[in-house]
Amino acid sequence: MIKINSNYSKLKASYLFSTIAKKVSEYQKNNPDKKIIKMGIGDVTLPLPPACVAAFSSAVEEMGKADTFRGYGPEQGYEFLRKAIADNDFKARGMDIEPDEIFVSDGAKSDSANIQELFAEDVRVAIQDPVYPVYLDTNVMAGRSGEPADGRYDNITYLPCVPQNNFLPDIPAETVDLIYLCYPNNPTGAVADKTYLKKWVDYARENKSIIIFDAAYEAFITDENIPHSIYEIEGAKEVAIEIRSFSKTAGFTGTRCAYTVVPKECIIKDENKTEYSLNAMWFRRQSTKFNGVSYPVQRAAEAVYSEEGKKQVKENIAYYLENARILREALEGLGYECTGGKNSPYIWINTGKDSWEFFDMLLDKAQIVCTPGSGFGKAGEGFVRFSAFNSRENVIEAADRLKRLLG
Amino acid sequence: MIKINSNYSKLKASYLFSTIAKKVSEYQKNNPDKKIIKMGIGDVTLPLPPACVAAFSSAVEEMGKADTFRGYGPEQGYEFLRKAIADNDFKARGMDIEPDEIFVSDGAKSDSANIQELFAEDVRVAIQDPVYPVYLDTNVMAGRSGEPADGRYDNITYLPCVPQNNFLPDIPAETVDLIYLCYPNNPTGAVADKTYLKKWVDYARENKSIIIFDAAYEAFITDENIPHSIYEIEGAKEVAIEIRSFSKTAGFTGTRCAYTVVPKECIIKDENKTEYSLNAMWFRRQSTKFNGVSYPVQRAAEAVYSEEGKKQVKENIAYYLENARILREALEGLGYECTGGKNSPYIWINTGKDSWEFFDMLLDKAQIVCTPGSGFGKAGEGFVRFSAFNSRENVIEAADRLKRLLG
Repeated sequence: MIKINSNYSKLKASYLFSTIAKKVSEYQKNNPDKKIIKMGIGDVTLPLPPACVAAFSSAVEEMGKADTFRGYGPEQGYEFLRKAIADNDFKARGMDIEPDEIFVSDGAKSDSANIQELFAEDVRVAIQDPVYPVYLDTNVMAGRSGEPADGRYDNITYLPCVPQNNFLPDIPAETVDLIYLCYPNNPTGAVADKTYLKKWVDYARENKSIIIFDAAYEAFITDENIPHSIYEIEGAKEVAIEIRSFSKTAGFTGTRCAYTVVPKECIIKDENKTEYSLNAMWFRRQSTKFNGVSYPVQRAAEAVYSEEGKKQVKENIAYYLENARILREALEGLGYECTGGKNSPYIWINTGKDSWEFFDMLLDKAQIVCTPGSGFGKAGEGFVRFSAFNSRENVIEAADRLKRLLG
Repeated sequence: MIKINSNYSKLKASYLFSTIAKKVSEYQKNNPDKKIIKMGIGDVTLPLPPACVAAFSSAVEEMGKADTFRGYGPEQGYEFLRKAIADNDFKARGMDIEPDEIFVSDGAKSDSANIQELFAEDVRVAIQDPVYPVYLDTNVMAGRSGEPADGRYDNITYLPCVPQNNFLPDIPAETVDLIYLCYPNNPTGAVADKTYLKKWVDYARENKSIIIFDAAYEAFITDENIPHSIYEIEGAKEVAIEIRSFSKTAGFTGTRCAYTVVPKECIIKDENKTEYSLNAMWFRRQSTKFNGVSYPVQRAAEAVYSEEGKKQVKENIAYYLENARILREALEGLGYECTGGKNSPYIWINTGKDSWEFFDMLLDKAQIVCTPGSGFGKAGEGFVRFSAFNSRENVIEAADRLKRLLG
């Protein structure tokens, strides 16, 4: 008799964004004449940059001709894209990352979900709270958590991100092995400076831990003193894996392309001093379970690094950041404590109320959709997240509605 | 101190096709003037059908315009594609499969690798031998095997596919829980009729096992009495998951699109009679770990089901099948026992020698690359696989070279 993976039974039944979608569609059904402005889910709204569209189209044409057609590509991604990434995202900023340390994938979600497979079932996992649910759920599915109790799981170390610590949690008292950090942070919009990240890198080196650094929002950083990559910290290449995405940078949420950096210096020793390379293990994992990203999509991603591509991406990011500024100023003007909205497309506000109550009130009275902070974790209770991914027109309208409702 | 997933250490170090690639590139280096004909890896050679290219291009254009741009899509795939699949691949052949039982993915490799996550670590796995290495390797990585010994793993049930059983292995003596079957078979090219598949379905229903049916090559079936899907067998919807791909059908090996069918009738009960729906579990798995297939790729896949698409795909399949016929006739004419090459793009021949010895001989004396059968498992020793994915010109030339060398 076959048995299911019983860890699935520990998962919470409903997913945050599907609950929101249900509430919104119900409200719209009952109020068909109202215009709802959605600032909940972090999905981009501007089209693909023209440079990406041109490269994408031309690669599709190649696939239709016998002499330029491509079948299976390398599982880790084509050299042309890995080289463009290494040169532009790392070497140009003084980090020594080579193309064979880069693994192109279909999404940061897949990579941040799959990376835990490389580690033993009994490693201790630390996640920030509030947090992008994928880090937690995938470790629950893999059996690394205990049972859920009171909105949290046993055997998981939660790192609360709260105003008291400026959303930069301290190193925990207990020893942790696999540490998920995300900066610029989703959902709080907080950023980390080098001093803060160095604490974690030093800790990981000392305790032989591994950091999974999610830098999906690095393109939104404008302050010069904020690091774009964990590898700007000395020694990080020995203890950190970094995940990045073209989704929020270049509007690839529906096109699907991301990458993960696994430095060759990431070596883990067991009790017998046998050494294991995480780079080699991830290569084995990806070549066994993945067959590479669509060739035309990789060409579209490569175009992000062309001169026109860089310019167009920069304009799009500036557009979203200006949206964020408008929203943040409106909320601050209303007396709310805000994080993010600078160096980040997200604004995290302290509502002084129950998260879902505030969500319902905004939907009902101002037809604005936000994301309830409690959906990201217990420490998110009382907060909501606004996303700046929207049209300028909608953002201005939303700011006005907020002022009228809450002013 | 972090620890690695020690199951990775059980994996064999090198992957079949990388060893072949190394041997071929070495030979070419030493013999730069020789023209090598590659019939090893099963990669398509004809370009994408024009109907797919047109749909692909037009969807790329949509992504470049604000009013038609699409961000995150549904993780399980767009309704337009799932409906086209259900209607054309199932309902048109009398099988009652609904769009919400279909999960679109980036590849049959990903799905056949990931599906095991739904099951407990101690389920007993049965695989055919020879076999597509992904089923085995992913179960080893998940800890379902014992240590490797003499080319096999402990705690795995191997189902030898040999001439004595017409490459249709019997139900094993021990009880097995998770059964991987592939027909038309990779690598042997063998096909299964309804009587044979019914034995497995009946067994699975009786023993509460689950069958993972890999039908990636169903498009090559021309005989009317050969089932295209496991769901042509009565009762299969309760016990079988089917994996299909656009790779070999429509030349999507570099474009990446596939799908998996998880019927709602696939329900597993535990000791307490609690029921678990595999459809719901796979939905949870995919929405947590995957973010859907690129929108333009899904439009390209949808075009496979348009009138022109169907016609073009049929022509491509006929082209490869004619290649297979030419190769098979040449090999049979030389006195080799052959399987496949009918209803399959693969021809599996009994060389009467060591597989790698025959491989080396063919490369050295005829500059033809095949795949050594032993690379697919112990029971493949003595065999090699030829792939019909090549140009007609190369296939005719290869047939001539084979006749000259072995005649």
